[in-house]
Amino acid sequence: MSVVEDKPGKVLRVALLGCGVVGTQVARLLAEQADDLAVRTGARLELAGIAVRRLAHARPGVDQALLTTDAMALATRPDVDVVIEVIGGIEPARSLILAAMEHGKSVVTANKALLAEHGEQVHAASRAFGADLYYEAAVAGAIPILRPMRESLAGDTVHRVLGIVNGTTNFILDRMDGSGADFGDSLEEAQALGYAEADPTADVEAFDAAAKAAILAGLAFHTRVTAADVYREGITEVTAADIASAKTLGRTVKLLAICERSGDGVAVRVHPAMIPRSHPLAAVGGAYNAVFVEAQSAGRLMFYGAGAGGTPTAAAVLGDVVAVARNRLAGTRGPELSTYAELPVRPMGDTLTRYHVSLDVADKPGVLAPVAEAFASHGVSIQAVRQTSRGDDALLIIVTHEARDADLAATIAELQALPVVRAVASVMRVEGEEDQS
Amino acid sequence: MSVVEDKPGKVLRVALLGCGVVGTQVARLLAEQADDLAVRTGARLELAGIAVRRLAHARPGVDQALLTTDAMALATRPDVDVVIEVIGGIEPARSLILAAMEHGKSVVTANKALLAEHGEQVHAASRAFGADLYYEAAVAGAIPILRPMRESLAGDTVHRVLGIVNGTTNFILDRMDGSGADFGDSLEEAQALGYAEADPTADVEAFDAAAKAAILAGLAFHTRVTAADVYREGITEVTAADIASAKTLGRTVKLLAICERSGDGVAVRVHPAMIPRSHPLAAVGGAYNAVFVEAQSAGRLMFYGAGAGGTPTAAAVLGDVVAVARNRLAGTRGPELSTYAELPVRPMGDTLTRYHVSLDVADKPGVLAPVAEAFASHGVSIQAVRQTSRGDDALLIIVTHEARDADLAATIAELQALPVVRAVASVMRVEGEEDQS
Repeated sequence: MSVVEDKPGKVLRVALLGCGVVGTQVARLLAEQADDLAVRTGARLELAGIAVRRLAHARPGVDQALLTTDAMALATRPDVDVVIEVIGGIEPARSLILAAMEHGKSVVTANKALLAEHGEQVHAASRAFGADLYYEAAVAGAIPILRPMRESLAGDTVHRVLGIVNGTTNFILDRMDGSGADFGDSLEEAQALGYAEADPTADVEAFDAAAKAAILAGLAFHTRVTAADVYREGITEVTAADIASAKTLGRTVKLLAICERSGDGVAVRVHPAMIPRSHPLAAVGGAYNAVFVEAQSAGRLMFYGAGAGGTPTAAAVLGDVVAVARNRLAGTRGPELSTYAELPVRPMGDTLTRYHVSLDVADKPGVLAPVAEAFASHGVSIQAVRQTSRGDDALLIIVTHEARDADLAATIAELQALPVVRAVASVMRVEGEEDQS
Repeated sequence: MSVVEDKPGKVLRVALLGCGVVGTQVARLLAEQADDLAVRTGARLELAGIAVRRLAHARPGVDQALLTTDAMALATRPDVDVVIEVIGGIEPARSLILAAMEHGKSVVTANKALLAEHGEQVHAASRAFGADLYYEAAVAGAIPILRPMRESLAGDTVHRVLGIVNGTTNFILDRMDGSGADFGDSLEEAQALGYAEADPTADVEAFDAAAKAAILAGLAFHTRVTAADVYREGITEVTAADIASAKTLGRTVKLLAICERSGDGVAVRVHPAMIPRSHPLAAVGGAYNAVFVEAQSAGRLMFYGAGAGGTPTAAAVLGDVVAVARNRLAGTRGPELSTYAELPVRPMGDTLTRYHVSLDVADKPGVLAPVAEAFASHGVSIQAVRQTSRGDDALLIIVTHEARDADLAATIAELQALPVVRAVASVMRVEGEEDQS
């Protein structure tokens, strides 16, 4: 730790690892907000260096003299107090963060992949070296959600978290809902507007949302959850027919990260789901994010805001920098990650879900009986049936009560083989409402 | 401070002052969640005593042996570490909190009135005695809003806070909007359902919301703001005509606590306002609360949840208790309230607002000219005019651009005296949308 002098000369030195979209904004805000940050933390935050891959890259407004390509040397420099990691990905970020903590630095990171895959290792290092590790920016960008989960709800029991934690997919689904366009056209529009990357896999296949779900579930249930524990379905299979079918029953389609208590364990999953239009999450449009929390005492809470973007993410990083700086000046650390509950993560097949199924069937008597029998044979109870005639065929929409996801999936397989069913037009899970028997 | 032994015997002793709706739930949760709280804080939280006014009062589930009527003795008892104040009101709460801090206790309170009126004094005592002072439950019940403002947004600059911070008035306005009922009937319904008290003054005249606005503004702008600084209008004058007029332009009426930067100062006010139905706050129904924050870097954030009720408020208290317990075990304190900015609070008359005005006028040519002239003579620019014929009279709805509130008020006074104006049917401020010139 650098020597911290008495006022007015207190200085904390900050190393910035990475200077891309987020890093540039962190550097800018550290400079622009320097006076406010000094009063709010009790020390001036001085940028000691910025680790980049290529020195030559143009970075308007960034002091060239601070740049270095030796990230490890910067992260472990004796005069550095706080290390900000905004490189992303597993390596070299992991090695840098571990080395920084070993050298007594406080660490702030926005790295969801690292935390979701190697959270246990980095948290263990944080404990072992007594180093702060903060990562509010890793989930839902600027929205303060991890700190409320970790601290404000520390006296409560969280039952369920439903989150829209990926702006790209929310933008695409919002467009599909608004315009009736299909997935491909909406993705192209999102790419043209800069809401989706050229290779959109991480977003549309829900790898990004799954990493965030793992982090949220770990905090919510005081349990170790990794990205590999998360059941994951992306939105590439969502069709205009799904959206239309949702609309007929007053629902809309969202990609949800769902973390919930399930039996004596927890279930963590990410998939498209229909939610009622009256649900607070239904109104979350465009690239916005929101996290909805159901807690035993606090009841229903929602946190809404910008889930991505350089400046909003940088704002979350700065909030964490102020926190670790205050802790450092006070000679203390933030609360440790608690995983004492060690609840088992249950497989998707055992999770209780509800299905919304649209079937193209012949418009004649005697169709419903074999369909109903298929549900019953798997122990799945039907909540509502709605048949709409469309000339010589009919659209049959069936909403189930809660059942084991595996039994629901087996029912769908059986329906696909039924002679009276011309096509299974749409299958999607229903969330965000009570199962009214 | 009591002696804290090494694990596994660490115990922190908690004194509970007040055992009404909130206190009963705090006592229950401390007992029911004891094991979880112990792991999360690192010490067992043991209830040392409960101060009540009358010992005889029935309190199901509360250990009679813990009760005392000597609150001061309990708050200053040498073996007590943490004092929870849920009595409410100014005295004796203030004296008890000050004495507790002087005796080295950490204090958690839900007392908005005390903080809004004597915040400076209790914060000064917190500093002087090095005692923690946490009060998340004082604003918007279970919603974690103060901690995010104080900590997560510490690296950002807040421009504006718009809050629905009173559940009673939100329930009443929601009913008026949904059913077309007038204020009186909706208030009676709220009272029958337990959402409004027999004497509803503190809620419907917005004293409650004004206290919360003062606390929010102080945190948002790092400035001392007291309840007396807050401009306040309640909802008793809101009519069915106001609600109907809002609907015609796609708006709804909410009682808003508004804290914003205004020139080189800040403006803090509570009054009914029309907001667009597309605004995230418009969907906040029933007795729910929500706080919408616009920050320079983070952008638009919203925090939503239960704003009142014994259990949700107790959940917020417990979150604070865990925080002060962790601080105490670590030998540190939470961040101090920062009021370094010391921005002046500007008078309502100088605040820039926009008005929505409905006029009953004669349905004949030549009406608009003198009306428009009244606005122009006060320097108020008109954004939109909409005239609806209703037989021999017409309804004229005018929405202004931003202007000094005093100039808008003077315009209304002039309109009331105009011969062509039969009645000023509705006047209300418009918030939550950009002023599009």
